[in-house]
Amino acid sequence: MGSTCVRIAIDAMGGDRAPGEIVTGALRAREELGVEVLLVGDPQQIEAVLPPKTNTAQIEIVPSEGAIEMEEEPLSAIRRKPKSSINVAMDLVKQKRADAVISAGHSGAAMASALLRLGRLKGIDRPAIGAVFPTMVASKQVLILDVGANVDCRPKFLEQFAIMGSVYSQYVLGINEPKVGLLNIGEEDCKGNDAAVRANQMLRENPNIDFIGNAEGRDVLSGDFDVIVCDGFVGNVLLKFAEAVGEVMLQIIREELPQGIRGQIGTAILKPNLRRIKQRMDHAEHGGALLLGVDGICIISHGSSQAPSIFNAVRMAKEAVDNQVLDRIQSQYQSLQRESS
Amino acid sequence: MGSTCVRIAIDAMGGDRAPGEIVTGALRAREELGVEVLLVGDPQQIEAVLPPKTNTAQIEIVPSEGAIEMEEEPLSAIRRKPKSSINVAMDLVKQKRADAVISAGHSGAAMASALLRLGRLKGIDRPAIGAVFPTMVASKQVLILDVGANVDCRPKFLEQFAIMGSVYSQYVLGINEPKVGLLNIGEEDCKGNDAAVRANQMLRENPNIDFIGNAEGRDVLSGDFDVIVCDGFVGNVLLKFAEAVGEVMLQIIREELPQGIRGQIGTAILKPNLRRIKQRMDHAEHGGALLLGVDGICIISHGSSQAPSIFNAVRMAKEAVDNQVLDRIQSQYQSLQRESS
Repeated sequence: MGSTCVRIAIDAMGGDRAPGEIVTGALRAREELGVEVLLVGDPQQIEAVLPPKTNTAQIEIVPSEGAIEMEEEPLSAIRRKPKSSINVAMDLVKQKRADAVISAGHSGAAMASALLRLGRLKGIDRPAIGAVFPTMVASKQVLILDVGANVDCRPKFLEQFAIMGSVYSQYVLGINEPKVGLLNIGEEDCKGNDAAVRANQMLRENPNIDFIGNAEGRDVLSGDFDVIVCDGFVGNVLLKFAEAVGEVMLQIIREELPQGIRGQIGTAILKPNLRRIKQRMDHAEHGGALLLGVDGICIISHGSSQAPSIFNAVRMAKEAVDNQVLDRIQSQYQSLQRESS
Repeated sequence: MGSTCVRIAIDAMGGDRAPGEIVTGALRAREELGVEVLLVGDPQQIEAVLPPKTNTAQIEIVPSEGAIEMEEEPLSAIRRKPKSSINVAMDLVKQKRADAVISAGHSGAAMASALLRLGRLKGIDRPAIGAVFPTMVASKQVLILDVGANVDCRPKFLEQFAIMGSVYSQYVLGINEPKVGLLNIGEEDCKGNDAAVRANQMLRENPNIDFIGNAEGRDVLSGDFDVIVCDGFVGNVLLKFAEAVGEVMLQIIREELPQGIRGQIGTAILKPNLRRIKQRMDHAEHGGALLLGVDGICIISHGSSQAPSIFNAVRMAKEAVDNQVLDRIQSQYQSLQRESS
């Protein structure tokens, strides 16, 4: 890749807070993480939000025309607007001018653009979106996939998700022999619908997956699993529920803290602790979801992302690049194909 | 129904804490709610856990033989053990000796027994399990169904769930014109898999359902919806996740509260508030899930239920009986059939 510095293409026009918060997060990441950022978007709008004393000669802005609106049908919009910021950002990866892409815009459009511009990795039928959840165990996380790319999944797609998830968990999240679970409605192998029973069997028989069994809803946050696979319908519902539930809990805590002198004293004493509670419950700390299975590193950030989320997304992207996630997924597949032939 | 007093059959042998906690909860409900309880189980074991000064002449114990174990396949176990406690309790409802049944035992077995002994309500293809979740709005709850009876659902089943849920919400939870949502991965009517799109259309066209659109995972706890319908796979995952997440949040709060003098003072001042936070997050307050669509009131309590859960389950059952939920679901269906003929 010529340069020794990781280069991240950032869709500066995507997201509710674009371009201001996106650019702010990107510049902070450039400063603190030592990455090169390519800001893709309308140059005038981007320059307007750069901090006054920025040395613009050092910031690479890649011009695009237009953006995909939230209400547009992704595939046709991607085709109709070839020069939209998300397409231009993907092209930078395709042309090897960037190592990864980040967008907080229309997630369906980002996925469609990735599929059309980058294509799938060999051996992968369907890319999946993976999201990292915190668990009860303070230092442990769990990767859930798919959280929204595929509403219906054949068992072999779930098996592919398990392989991709294991590679990411091992090489990026640093888990030695990641433990894989299948999201289901009971622990027993026979539980669930036909697809779940068949997927359970395929996962159990695959020697390259450390499958430890079905994971029920209650097991998601237990810390017992490193990777949990599911179809994109249930995964998406779970992700959005989990994001909201943190908010709800914080609100309950706020509502129930007492008013008046007694409350002020108690709350003041516990202030640093309450702040730490908020941090552990807050999903904004996680940066974004990964699109795994396309031929490029793509991070899909939340539409409401502010600068800290974008910063964290850049860190995720850098770690995926540094740890050669794509090559490793690909070589896992090639070795699997050799074994089975 | 002869007696003016509501009579509840309680499976005293079902649940991790049976019969002790089950009997204790049942007796407290009898005392405080003015219901008659029929304790179904092994008389010797039940008598052994009655408080010393109980007037046993006033407590009706209905003998049964054996119980369904957690690892047994429900349908065959129900057939093989006709005199097991859950079957005997269902028979009491069938014979009109009880108005409702409560069990904290094997939930699959309770469902199978209800289907075989009581049968379905006319017009209902599939009974559903409904669970009441708290929401962000302190005084509001949301009824989610199905949370586990049917892993795959045809769109018309979801429509039936919406009718049953609306009746329950209106007449038991006291919501005037309950707002119904379809659990889905996007707000737009076109989102989701084929079944979701078709269900959305059926719900929208049904004049007896106040359908306000798709509910995403983040909307479940918003308080905007009174009833949310979904298939039993995603509903079950969500229910178990929600139960666990309350636990996780409480643990985070405990871990992050400070140690030492400062912590003791802060925590002591906030003690009543922390207790209220726990209450609002704690699912044990909710008693159990309802099996809607069978010809009898059935409450399926959590396997880990202790006396307070059983007490709350009895209260739920009493409210369903007092408000004639079965008759109302039935008459909704009859009026629907007249309209469409």
